[in-house]
Amino acid sequence: MLQRMLSEIRIAGFGGQGVILAASVIGKAAAIFEGGFATMTQSFGPEARGGSSSAQVILSSDPILYPYVARPEILVVMSQEAYARFAPQLKPGGILITEQELVRVDQVPENIRVFGVPATRLAEELRRKVVLNIVMVGFFGAVTKLLDRESLCKAVEDSVPPAMQKLNRAAFDKGFAYGTGLVNRGEAEPVEALEAV
Amino acid sequence: MLQRMLSEIRIAGFGGQGVILAASVIGKAAAIFEGGFATMTQSFGPEARGGSSSAQVILSSDPILYPYVARPEILVVMSQEAYARFAPQLKPGGILITEQELVRVDQVPENIRVFGVPATRLAEELRRKVVLNIVMVGFFGAVTKLLDRESLCKAVEDSVPPAMQKLNRAAFDKGFAYGTGLVNRGEAEPVEALEAV
Repeated sequence: MLQRMLSEIRIAGFGGQGVILAASVIGKAAAIFEGGFATMTQSFGPEARGGSSSAQVILSSDPILYPYVARPEILVVMSQEAYARFAPQLKPGGILITEQELVRVDQVPENIRVFGVPATRLAEELRRKVVLNIVMVGFFGAVTKLLDRESLCKAVEDSVPPAMQKLNRAAFDKGFAYGTGLVNRGEAEPVEALEAV
Repeated sequence: MLQRMLSEIRIAGFGGQGVILAASVIGKAAAIFEGGFATMTQSFGPEARGGSSSAQVILSSDPILYPYVARPEILVVMSQEAYARFAPQLKPGGILITEQELVRVDQVPENIRVFGVPATRLAEELRRKVVLNIVMVGFFGAVTKLLDRESLCKAVEDSVPPAMQKLNRAAFDKGFAYGTGLVNRGEAEPVEALEAV
């Protein structure tokens, strides 16, 4: 169950990586399976024409009056371009989650915790690169601990066609296990403050 | 091409009617195929658990700083519940578009133009009730004249799997033709002001 809370999340990457579906799964998990509220905002604009994709999710224990994410607390990036564009907006104390083989983290704002996962490679182990987004969702679940694992699983299964549920569940589990491993080994990489942006 | 403009649209109905896809098609048409900007915001909350679905779309010729639709100018409703909930928020001078066999319009705010389409029945003529949302998009295109027909068609085709393009294009054409017929016959139903809500 959601405690009284408000969390702002941005997920960004290339078109075709399944950014919107990942955002929608997180919103559903919070609102439909944990009794909270969530909004998901997707932009279509020049950046969409250029092949990038981003979505904003707000999770809340109360109805959301203002769904626009100005400064996300959690940023999930699956491309270098998305990292370059959105990392400077991350709130101090926030969490940065990266597809670590697609994003090189050079300069991060102060007090940001960084977690990387080779999501594309883990998805390829399932022979379906297309589920990298759900690997990211599993990893997100494990490292942020924001939502129940079970709610996220249900939201994944609810969001894909029946024939794809087993594959997506396997992708989720891979991401979650990878994240749990990192957290248990204390590899949260509390990145030292570099130049604040 | 979009003239300098800002349009606020809400689309609402039952879960399963394809509300989110319809909203996304309209956003894409404006931003990707007409060079404008668009955002689509989807809410997950108690109403989603109860089986209703709604999305907000903002179309703009300029970047959108504040994507929250408080008072839509255009409301597209596919269920009585959605009508009851959102019609009171419609701006004076706005447009109300209904699935006319699912929505009984009793009381509308002042100065609202109402256009109804039997979208479910038109979709059933194609033997796929599931495309009623794209019939609504076609109808929306014809009666609002907000976006080019060609942009909307491209956005429809871009938003569905290749095997479904022909069906969805046919659904779009049916809705568009029905809307054009209404407009040409001057049946825009400029509803007399009843009790303002």
